[in-house]
Amino acid sequence: MPSVPHFELLKTDTATAARRARLTTRHGVVQTPIFMPVGTQGTVKAVTPVQLREIGAQIILGNTYHLNIRPTSELIRDMGGLHKFMGWDGPILTDSGGFQVFSLAKLRDIRPDGVAFQSHLDGAKLFLGPREVMTIQQNLGSDIAMVLDECPPFPCERDVCAHSVARTFEWAKQCKQIATDNGFLAAGHHVFAIAQGSTYDDIRREAAEALASLDFPGYAIGGVSVGEPEPEMLQQVSASVKYLPAHKPRYTMGLGTPPQMLKMIAMGVDMFDCVMPTRVARNGLVFTPDGPINLRNEKYRADPRPISDEVQNYTTNFSRAYLRHLTTSNEMLAGTLLSMHNLHFFLDLMAQARARIEAGDYATWHRAWITRYEAGSK
Amino acid sequence: MPSVPHFELLKTDTATAARRARLTTRHGVVQTPIFMPVGTQGTVKAVTPVQLREIGAQIILGNTYHLNIRPTSELIRDMGGLHKFMGWDGPILTDSGGFQVFSLAKLRDIRPDGVAFQSHLDGAKLFLGPREVMTIQQNLGSDIAMVLDECPPFPCERDVCAHSVARTFEWAKQCKQIATDNGFLAAGHHVFAIAQGSTYDDIRREAAEALASLDFPGYAIGGVSVGEPEPEMLQQVSASVKYLPAHKPRYTMGLGTPPQMLKMIAMGVDMFDCVMPTRVARNGLVFTPDGPINLRNEKYRADPRPISDEVQNYTTNFSRAYLRHLTTSNEMLAGTLLSMHNLHFFLDLMAQARARIEAGDYATWHRAWITRYEAGSK
Repeated sequence: MPSVPHFELLKTDTATAARRARLTTRHGVVQTPIFMPVGTQGTVKAVTPVQLREIGAQIILGNTYHLNIRPTSELIRDMGGLHKFMGWDGPILTDSGGFQVFSLAKLRDIRPDGVAFQSHLDGAKLFLGPREVMTIQQNLGSDIAMVLDECPPFPCERDVCAHSVARTFEWAKQCKQIATDNGFLAAGHHVFAIAQGSTYDDIRREAAEALASLDFPGYAIGGVSVGEPEPEMLQQVSASVKYLPAHKPRYTMGLGTPPQMLKMIAMGVDMFDCVMPTRVARNGLVFTPDGPINLRNEKYRADPRPISDEVQNYTTNFSRAYLRHLTTSNEMLAGTLLSMHNLHFFLDLMAQARARIEAGDYATWHRAWITRYEAGSK
Repeated sequence: MPSVPHFELLKTDTATAARRARLTTRHGVVQTPIFMPVGTQGTVKAVTPVQLREIGAQIILGNTYHLNIRPTSELIRDMGGLHKFMGWDGPILTDSGGFQVFSLAKLRDIRPDGVAFQSHLDGAKLFLGPREVMTIQQNLGSDIAMVLDECPPFPCERDVCAHSVARTFEWAKQCKQIATDNGFLAAGHHVFAIAQGSTYDDIRREAAEALASLDFPGYAIGGVSVGEPEPEMLQQVSASVKYLPAHKPRYTMGLGTPPQMLKMIAMGVDMFDCVMPTRVARNGLVFTPDGPINLRNEKYRADPRPISDEVQNYTTNFSRAYLRHLTTSNEMLAGTLLSMHNLHFFLDLMAQARARIEAGDYATWHRAWITRYEAGSK
């Protein structure tokens, strides 16, 4: 295991900072850039593991906060780990749960040793510190575990942000030490640190450089898409990514739209995850190369065409009229078919990006792709 | 088409009245006895057509009442028919809509020429007569269309029942005439008549014999499982089935539990449909050879076993603990996986029944199967 580098850069673009790479995990190889479907509660909503394979998923994400509350990480450990529990034998990345503590939980109390909070489900008093999040992710058998971090809100005062980044650094150190001591890293699991810094470029740089010195297997950019405008979000990613080690995978958490992902790939980001494609699918919104369309619109009532003539997946065997009928009738199959389509659209976009980086024309291709998509979205 | 009999009896059991047969339709051959998954609104809830094939579905059912209201049969016709619309290229049986008019619609007015009623969705005033139901089912492209019938409630006064059966006979005649005149029957579509008669054995016999004289391609037994106790229901089936032509397929509508189906097969019934397996699946109830179990039960929380060791399908790759987690978390995947399991259980039971009729030991086998199932259900 130690002799094989877990992240191999295959090509770095010259006109942009885009990279084509291969990330090796205990459950297989991931070709990057890649989008990771989100399986919050031990399932990518409405999609079976077999269907995930069919649409080209390489790696999926699990949410520590949710799984720890229900059914609990101990139960999942006793059932053989998250892979076996949910029937997915490919790589799994799990977050630390920190973000959900800040966005979902009630009455949270941030202390130097972690975060005390109440479950959003039943109000139970819980605590997540570096040791807890690493233990939970070990119970889950995560291929890529994330450190505990504090995610500042938007907007955020400079001194509050600096204090938060300092705490996140301490927690990252502790998480790495724990994963070293208990053999988690030596067993081939990865642990990624999370670079924060809100809208302060200098703090983002300091945070990224400090974490880089700890030599983590990979790095995430956190605290983006928490309410700030899109240009601000992209600026934050730009301000962070260039100070993260070039020979390590880079992951922006919770992002993004298709154009955002293509722009971040051009900045040198390798990995993405987002609930958006499945969440909007459950409301009838589907992606096309000419922008998203909402199938609830009356104009699709008798439309015999597939969602897109250029996209080939199981869902595009059906007419817009049929998919609209399922959606307006609140049929569960709508959630399944539209989620599969949207995830495939995102996964296929990543496959195209990889091919274009290899071909050397990523810069022109991604600009043209975005231009067409945004023109159609108007 | 006319030279090939559309229903071939392959074997008739000697110890029971069970039959093994082959029903030929425009969209393929159905091996009977068979269970038909119900696709009310143009989808078997939460299950894709590919998954239906995987679990062994041969023929599915569509509901005329629902499809006529939304998205309308004209739209489905314009989209190429129900098979193309919903992506199912196997046989489809559609009901006439009559049963739903009696169970769902508001302010219905039964007249000699049909039923006027209001849509349960938006109160729109609608009418279904023999011509309307045959036109709708022609629009859908149904392989097996059902005649319009009047379904008496339980209990029902004798004279009301007799009057209803007489009207059902007239409507059946008209439906057959319409399907003859417009070429529907000549094109290889089938039309099945429906024998009613409530709890009156003599009326059931008269109804069956009268309809038999009209030489329909197949016959259903209707008005069962409308609130009467199970022994009463089985008696009604028994009172009807023996007067239906032996060389035509026999179908009990809306039934039943696994033991009920096995008992009706022994009486000579060939076809079944029921929403129950998918409806209860969405509430966590799954079938095993030892009776149904409810996965919401706390005792399955950490149960690593599959639903059943003797049943092999995609769902039995998962632990009861995982399926319980999905169910209690209200995850859509629970609906998909448990529906697939329950439908497969019913379809596999029919496959076993067919094999036992062929082997000549159906009588002993079905009694033993029911004994075990009912012992486990206690």
